[in-house]
Amino acid sequence: MITAKGEGMTLSMLHGEPRVITVGTSVLSEALDAQAVPQTRVDWRPPLPGTAPALAELLADPRREQANDVAVGRLLSARPHLIGVRPARDVLGLEPGTFFHAGPPITWERASGPMRGALIGAMLFEGLAASPEEAEHRLSSGGTTLDPCHHHRTVGPMAGVVSPSMWMLEVADAEHGGTAYCSLNEGLGKVLRYGAYGPEVIDRLRWMGEVLGPVLQAALERSGPLDLRSLIAQALQMGDELHNRNRAATSLLVREIAPAIVDAAPERAAEVLRFINGNDHFFLNAGMAAAKVSADAARNVPGSSLVVAMARNGTDFGIQVSGLGNRWFTGPAGVPDGLYLGAYGPDDANPDIGDSTITETSGLGGFAMAAAPAIVRFVGGDVSDAVAATTSMYEITLAEHPAYQIPGLGFRGTPVGIDITLVARTGVLPVVNTGIAGRVAGTGQVGAGLVSPPADAFTAALEALADA
Amino acid sequence: MITAKGEGMTLSMLHGEPRVITVGTSVLSEALDAQAVPQTRVDWRPPLPGTAPALAELLADPRREQANDVAVGRLLSARPHLIGVRPARDVLGLEPGTFFHAGPPITWERASGPMRGALIGAMLFEGLAASPEEAEHRLSSGGTTLDPCHHHRTVGPMAGVVSPSMWMLEVADAEHGGTAYCSLNEGLGKVLRYGAYGPEVIDRLRWMGEVLGPVLQAALERSGPLDLRSLIAQALQMGDELHNRNRAATSLLVREIAPAIVDAAPERAAEVLRFINGNDHFFLNAGMAAAKVSADAARNVPGSSLVVAMARNGTDFGIQVSGLGNRWFTGPAGVPDGLYLGAYGPDDANPDIGDSTITETSGLGGFAMAAAPAIVRFVGGDVSDAVAATTSMYEITLAEHPAYQIPGLGFRGTPVGIDITLVARTGVLPVVNTGIAGRVAGTGQVGAGLVSPPADAFTAALEALADA
Repeated sequence: MITAKGEGMTLSMLHGEPRVITVGTSVLSEALDAQAVPQTRVDWRPPLPGTAPALAELLADPRREQANDVAVGRLLSARPHLIGVRPARDVLGLEPGTFFHAGPPITWERASGPMRGALIGAMLFEGLAASPEEAEHRLSSGGTTLDPCHHHRTVGPMAGVVSPSMWMLEVADAEHGGTAYCSLNEGLGKVLRYGAYGPEVIDRLRWMGEVLGPVLQAALERSGPLDLRSLIAQALQMGDELHNRNRAATSLLVREIAPAIVDAAPERAAEVLRFINGNDHFFLNAGMAAAKVSADAARNVPGSSLVVAMARNGTDFGIQVSGLGNRWFTGPAGVPDGLYLGAYGPDDANPDIGDSTITETSGLGGFAMAAAPAIVRFVGGDVSDAVAATTSMYEITLAEHPAYQIPGLGFRGTPVGIDITLVARTGVLPVVNTGIAGRVAGTGQVGAGLVSPPADAFTAALEALADA
Repeated sequence: MITAKGEGMTLSMLHGEPRVITVGTSVLSEALDAQAVPQTRVDWRPPLPGTAPALAELLADPRREQANDVAVGRLLSARPHLIGVRPARDVLGLEPGTFFHAGPPITWERASGPMRGALIGAMLFEGLAASPEEAEHRLSSGGTTLDPCHHHRTVGPMAGVVSPSMWMLEVADAEHGGTAYCSLNEGLGKVLRYGAYGPEVIDRLRWMGEVLGPVLQAALERSGPLDLRSLIAQALQMGDELHNRNRAATSLLVREIAPAIVDAAPERAAEVLRFINGNDHFFLNAGMAAAKVSADAARNVPGSSLVVAMARNGTDFGIQVSGLGNRWFTGPAGVPDGLYLGAYGPDDANPDIGDSTITETSGLGGFAMAAAPAIVRFVGGDVSDAVAATTSMYEITLAEHPAYQIPGLGFRGTPVGIDITLVARTGVLPVVNTGIAGRVAGTGQVGAGLVSPPADAFTAALEALADA
């Protein structure tokens, strides 16, 4: 039966000009353009293949929206403060022979070159081996334990290897009471996190444990906690996106804490300040711990489809979802598309590695690219590419950050809170900025660029959530 | 006689659709819009009133373009470095009883409240008077000498008063060999440059002469010259426009020089760092001296219509032009349109004051507003207003700065090199960002905002150049 309303529509279709709405793939749209037929384009992409049943189930569940409101609300309201710098053995109960590492769980056998290199370096640093060969032998013969940082309220950039004698940034969430940790940033070039383990790497780690860590701890005792949410918000107004660019945040941090460093250790202050000044990424690790403590506040909300961790171990890219506890959903780590240092090229690149994607998980890094157009220039892009990257992330996120704003977008909040149902429905994957490690153990950094996570990790999580 | 080409045009006008080009005022344009007649709009404004004869003469002179190329080329190629911090009496030969001040020449009788207040403070600081009353009596009875900063390779923010015991930032141009000076920034609130002269103002100036100046000089001796062109270029990428916002530049400066400060004066380093950290405008004065030495490199090119100084003494706004030596062309200083601190309002504001418009003269400040959208928010604007301010300045400038770039405009160089013929021809006046001083001597800062120079200064300079 045709209703009056339906009839009217039919009549107008018969008598009026036809109007064409095009959706999805561009074949029809382009044909219409060629014939100069007016059309209304709808920006639509098909869902990720095979996700329709799980999506249908999840989108029909009225409790999911409320669960996500709770989860993302906790992520947004976190107030991370840097409260101390202390040895991993004291704050994390880490025992000799156990190493934390970036990403989802991994064994020595499946570990990539830079992960193996960093573990070898940590063995040497801890005095558990006298040579790289001995370290490798012990690591491969099962006398050591590997455990993800993320299982211990910790994150680490690149290989993310943490051993008992390393000093950790301690970040507390003044809103929800959580705590998170990240190692101190070693600087650029040949460093442990990129898999280098030469004598200069080990010497630097010793100095960081003997001088840098204790001086920073003493300075923080004098200055009191540092408000990282405020520092990050300011740095976004100053051209940082807080993953591949931390120049403003590092400068603000130095400026804030320099007087306390001088007061705490007048005789070591100059060398400590020179070390920090020499490394624009010094703030990265503090920002990562801030992101970790914020994302952890959003964990374990039953039914929530919010991503609370994205992390790579150099072999697998894994995600964790608020409503799914500590389960990992993984896919193969991709090789970043980027700019290479010196004579290095894509053949030298290791697949994606590190916990630093915790920045994207909290609405920074690739998600805040529009705040840092200087970065996309490195990979041949321009301001419009930076804006497009950030803009596309609003499609897969639940909120706009109330404190983290982007001047060039009219001070709009950064897209924050990745929802796996939105990723599945749109097929849009998170944009990740990252450093690129050399694939051969001992090489170090070879470049920096952009990478996409594997869609499989999101579809696997989606099905698990539908099953839950 | 109608040529074939002319005939063709006539024929096409007779046979084709009429095309309408609209220029200038919008009455015709709006009438056409109302009738839905297509039109091509030309953005055109009439020249400044009365400037047509001088403009015609100047624009017809083929030598002007080459002169301007030389002048603006020198402005753009300057490489200012901070090389020292030394007492005005040593570097400027300043004698007790003589005071430099901001803007074009002025007498005590015509001086505004904040200029008088700053002079009173300088008398007290130099020990030339025991009370404000005595200082005022001596200043008004002719026993002292006033001389513009600009006549002595110097600039000063707001009142810009310089006395022999003040320590000056010394900036050298590594390209052309010039040197310029600016006092050290005192911080915000009740400070001499805003006309305050209470005991806390004088005590702070003493500390700056006894501790801050000598420590900075000792640090610079260790660190070597600081490349200000590079610092300014970086700060523009970090949300500063280098006049009303200097947060990034100050942070980068602190970070750069902190280790040398510690080495040079371990026992005073913490208080010096705390003082600098407490004031986001600390860099302003270094940036002003950098702009001054750059603009001075462009002086005295015969026939050039390039503006080499814009400066205000709180009563008059004056400009100097490359082809016109040290002559000033002035008009009444306007009252800035801005945001007021606390309970202050427009009635409390002094007319525009200070040499800090040297930043706009060198393509920074209001000219770089698009780099610092956070600033226009203070005066009720948004990102598009900031972009519009910078964009309009390309109409009156000769070049785009090769090193000073704006990320949000696709890394386009800032508009730089104000040409008085372009100002006269377009009627577009320079956009100036500024602090606002209280009009009563002793008040201090009451706000910050935007102001336009008087058109008279530009028309007077134009006529003088046409006469020359």
